[in-house]
Amino acid sequence: MLTSVTTIPVRYAETDQMGVVHHSNYPIYFEAGRTEFFQQHLMPYPEMEKLGLFAPVLSYEVSIKGRASYGHTLSVETRPAWMKGVRVAISYRVTRDGLDVASGSTVHALVGADMKPVHPRSFGELYPMLTRAFAV
Amino acid sequence: MLTSVTTIPVRYAETDQMGVVHHSNYPIYFEAGRTEFFQQHLMPYPEMEKLGLFAPVLSYEVSIKGRASYGHTLSVETRPAWMKGVRVAISYRVTRDGLDVASGSTVHALVGADMKPVHPRSFGELYPMLTRAFAV
Amino acid sequence: MLTSVTTIPVRYAETDQMGVVHHSNYPIYFEAGRTEFFQQHLMPYPEMEKLGLFAPVLSYEVSIKGRASYGHTLSVETRPAWMKGVRVAISYRVTRDGLDVASGSTVHALVGADMKPVHPRSFGELYPMLTRAFAV
Amino acid sequence: MLTSVTTIPVRYAETDQMGVVHHSNYPIYFEAGRTEFFQQHLMPYPEMEKLGLFAPVLSYEVSIKGRASYGHTLSVETRPAWMKGVRVAISYRVTRDGLDVASGSTVHALVGADMKPVHPRSFGELYPMLTRAFAV
Repeated sequence: MLTSVTTIPVRYAETDQMGVVHHSNYPIYFEAGRTEFFQQHLMPYPEMEKLGLFAPVLSYEVSIKGRASYGHTLSVETRPAWMKGVRVAISYRVTRDGLDVASGSTVHALVGADMKPVHPRSFGELYPMLTRAFAV
Repeated sequence: MLTSVTTIPVRYAETDQMGVVHHSNYPIYFEAGRTEFFQQHLMPYPEMEKLGLFAPVLSYEVSIKGRASYGHTLSVETRPAWMKGVRVAISYRVTRDGLDVASGSTVHALVGADMKPVHPRSFGELYPMLTRAFAV
Repeated sequence: MLTSVTTIPVRYAETDQMGVVHHSNYPIYFEAGRTEFFQQHLMPYPEMEKLGLFAPVLSYEVSIKGRASYGHTLSVETRPAWMKGVRVAISYRVTRDGLDVASGSTVHALVGADMKPVHPRSFGELYPMLTRAFAV
Repeated sequence: MLTSVTTIPVRYAETDQMGVVHHSNYPIYFEAGRTEFFQQHLMPYPEMEKLGLFAPVLSYEVSIKGRASYGHTLSVETRPAWMKGVRVAISYRVTRDGLDVASGSTVHALVGADMKPVHPRSFGELYPMLTRAFAV
């Protein structure tokens, strides 16, 4: 199973008055993980956008499993979950020194620049990479 | 059913290069809705924290239903979902001119300043308000 | 002197582990103030962008004068500072219950959709509003 | 002159509808640079906070020099500017492939946990590191 690991040092600005990472940062950490996954196993996401294929987030979920604070360095493990027609799902696990901090997943639409659904089959070079990554 | 409505003008900084609100802002909009719900129907959340009761987010989910852009004014409708022991869930609907933009929910732990679970029954003045709001 | 006042409730996500508003939020509060100033005294900024006139930030400065925390409601007072050729400057004062919280200013380029400088004189309907607002 | 260089991949969430990094992110990039500078040349900032010394931002300024977009990897060069009594200033230069993207500076108060000014001389182990770094 293809996977990527992204290292993220917690920023002071990401903490809140409880002294931990505010929960709204996890979708941003997931996105950093996704960026690296695309770069390593598909194609850099900015190049995909230049080809005219976008993958906006349709829905996502986040579970907080442990405490992350300023000074911690987090790891985001990113792996494909599924691809069905014009939708793909990706899952994430955030850890610190091997301890669970958060997990979650995102579901994306595959759309053109007009935000209308587009089947990735239309993207010759990209499609085999997608089917391999998502084990379709 | 108790509910509150919070008005949120989209900020330029909240948009991304697709020209819409970045999906990581919805948990922040939910939080603004939750703040107003507590203020109207329970007690201001900062006062609850001063009493020693915190409600950190354990998990949440977000579904994007429509397009929100800079210049739009959003409404966040906040309503209690359930309360079970030391956990509560709250749900949210974000609209623009009556059109669905996003929906979602958050699950919270009720904990003391030491982040250990604490039953809201220990908070004499607050407990009846909670059971009424969550229709327990 | 034209001015506008914008009300901003501090969001939990905007606090940091020192228990106050993280300093990176002030340019976002300034932007909210600017949005309201444009709406009240010039034209809604999204409409200006549709006309093909953009005002990206070239530089800005922020001074922290006092403490702002979750639960506080802030006021942003926005007023034009100067307009010279294709540049304008705007200044801001953030207060809470009349007490100073922060102040600052932004300098903007006036550019077209191609990000090349464009004199506002080219925007017939807008120019008299700008000269009046900036007392040129 | 002591200096540190921090690598920052631009996040999608940091872009705005103009397709570039929103200007409010630069103080956050500066902070990431500062974190690395403290770690390399002074002591990790979280340890300094544990000793009871905090360095909240009193003021800062940012100049945008060029375009940074999603897909770009930025470098933040951090160097001390000056130290006078209970205040220090730090300056930053953000580049992409050697091209200027932004520059700026921050001024900090040195305070104790009670947010009252405290002279760094009171911190035996830290003071010689500070005077060396700031070439006082």
